Amino acid sequence: MKVLIVHAHYEPRSFTTAMKDAAVETLTAAGHEVEVSDLYVMGFDPVAKKADFAEPKNPDYTVYSLEQRHGWSNGTIAPDVKAEVEKLLAADLVIFSFPIFWFSVPAIMKGWIDRVLLSGVCFGGVRFYDRGGLRGKRALVAATLGGRDYMFDGPSSVHGPIEDMLRHLLRGTLGYVGLDVLKPVFGWHVPYIDDAERRKILDDYKARLATVFTETPLNLYPSLSDFDSVMRPLAGASITR
Amino acid sequence: MKVLIVHAHYEPRSFTTAMKDAAVETLTAAGHEVEVSDLYVMGFDPVAKKADFAEPKNPDYTVYSLEQRHGWSNGTIAPDVKAEVEKLLAADLVIFSFPIFWFSVPAIMKGWIDRVLLSGVCFGGVRFYDRGGLRGKRALVAATLGGRDYMFDGPSSVHGPIEDMLRHLLRGTLGYVGLDVLKPVFGWHVPYIDDAERRKILDDYKARLATVFTETPLNLYPSLSDFDSVMRPLAGASITR
Repeated sequence: MKVLIVHAHYEPRSFTTAMKDAAVETLTAAGHEVEVSDLYVMGFDPVAKKADFAEPKNPDYTVYSLEQRHGWSNGTIAPDVKAEVEKLLAADLVIFSFPIFWFSVPAIMKGWIDRVLLSGVCFGGVRFYDRGGLRGKRALVAATLGGRDYMFDGPSSVHGPIEDMLRHLLRGTLGYVGLDVLKPVFGWHVPYIDDAERRKILDDYKARLATVFTETPLNLYPSLSDFDSVMRPLAGASITR
Repeated sequence: MKVLIVHAHYEPRSFTTAMKDAAVETLTAAGHEVEVSDLYVMGFDPVAKKADFAEPKNPDYTVYSLEQRHGWSNGTIAPDVKAEVEKLLAADLVIFSFPIFWFSVPAIMKGWIDRVLLSGVCFGGVRFYDRGGLRGKRALVAATLGGRDYMFDGPSSVHGPIEDMLRHLLRGTLGYVGLDVLKPVFGWHVPYIDDAERRKILDDYKARLATVFTETPLNLYPSLSDFDSVMRPLAGASITR
């Protein structure tokens, strides 16, 4: 299978980078083809901007999503975006590897999301959730954070469930484009743990990677078959997510 | 009072920018002092990186939050970050003005959050939520989106409550640093509405700005007095958020 790892860390010697390297090694050894977009190493530009469109449909007034459609279909979208979209479309699994900044991805990865998840390709009109443009592909978040797991282990924990804090990413982004979102992998409390604990996180992650193509994805979003054409719930539909 | 508007839109003629301009005009006319950080106009660099620290504490291995503390206390943090922190510390109210990209802020604004909300100043140790470093200041999200309000108006709507999608921002970011977070202002379905509807959003926003210093903030996070020193809930604490 083909795997794209989108990785972002400002420190090449970070533990997050060690997790990314462990994934490359494990997946390659298992016979998969792995591509890495190492955003800091690439100097990826995260800013969605007018200059992303060399031959805009409307030079006087930019609507980013409309220009994405136009630029992609005309082949005039920014070359760095085009290269990433091609990697994405070739992948069976996309792994997002990053340190959690503010209960989300670092800005450089947010910019990859803003610029690469193209309208007209990944979503658009009523193509989202179970009708999203990337249906059939899988996504795995593999992230590190300073917090401890018990700070996120239920409604009485200090921050509430981590999946709630990451709802915008797991459901609102990866689920929105139709990806099958797997249970995330977290490296908890990373700046404060010892080498044995770090080793255990790496070993658990490597073991987990054996099941990423076969395990059942999370059940994050409703089926659009429960909604009418303007996305109002149908009478009698039982919507629980 | 002093107001800082952090604004991000790639299109100077956008409706989001018109909302920002309406806020500047209304708040200034009411006698407040308004500062605007217009991130696209400033060419703000959103990437958290080693070069943010001219005289790092540890040149060989960067831990971003530790270098933020060191760089701020030594005055050697990147000048663009220092300027924004000073504006933030001077403000009584911070307005975040942006189009919602992927149920979050655009990358250029995520980078403002990543780089400007300094460890050691805005948070650090057990200084978060009701002990956050920015206690006593207020925050207002004023955002536009393509979706309609009914897509977010309850658990059976297609996306669920908008506050849940924005939990990482409202609670996990603005609440985390101790800001009093106000009920957000949304410009719904903006690309598709007519001038009369746009005018109504602007008029409602202007009217709303009259109460931003007196209205009761949202109740987004628990009190740390319900947790022990390592943030485990105290026996008998009733934690409902």
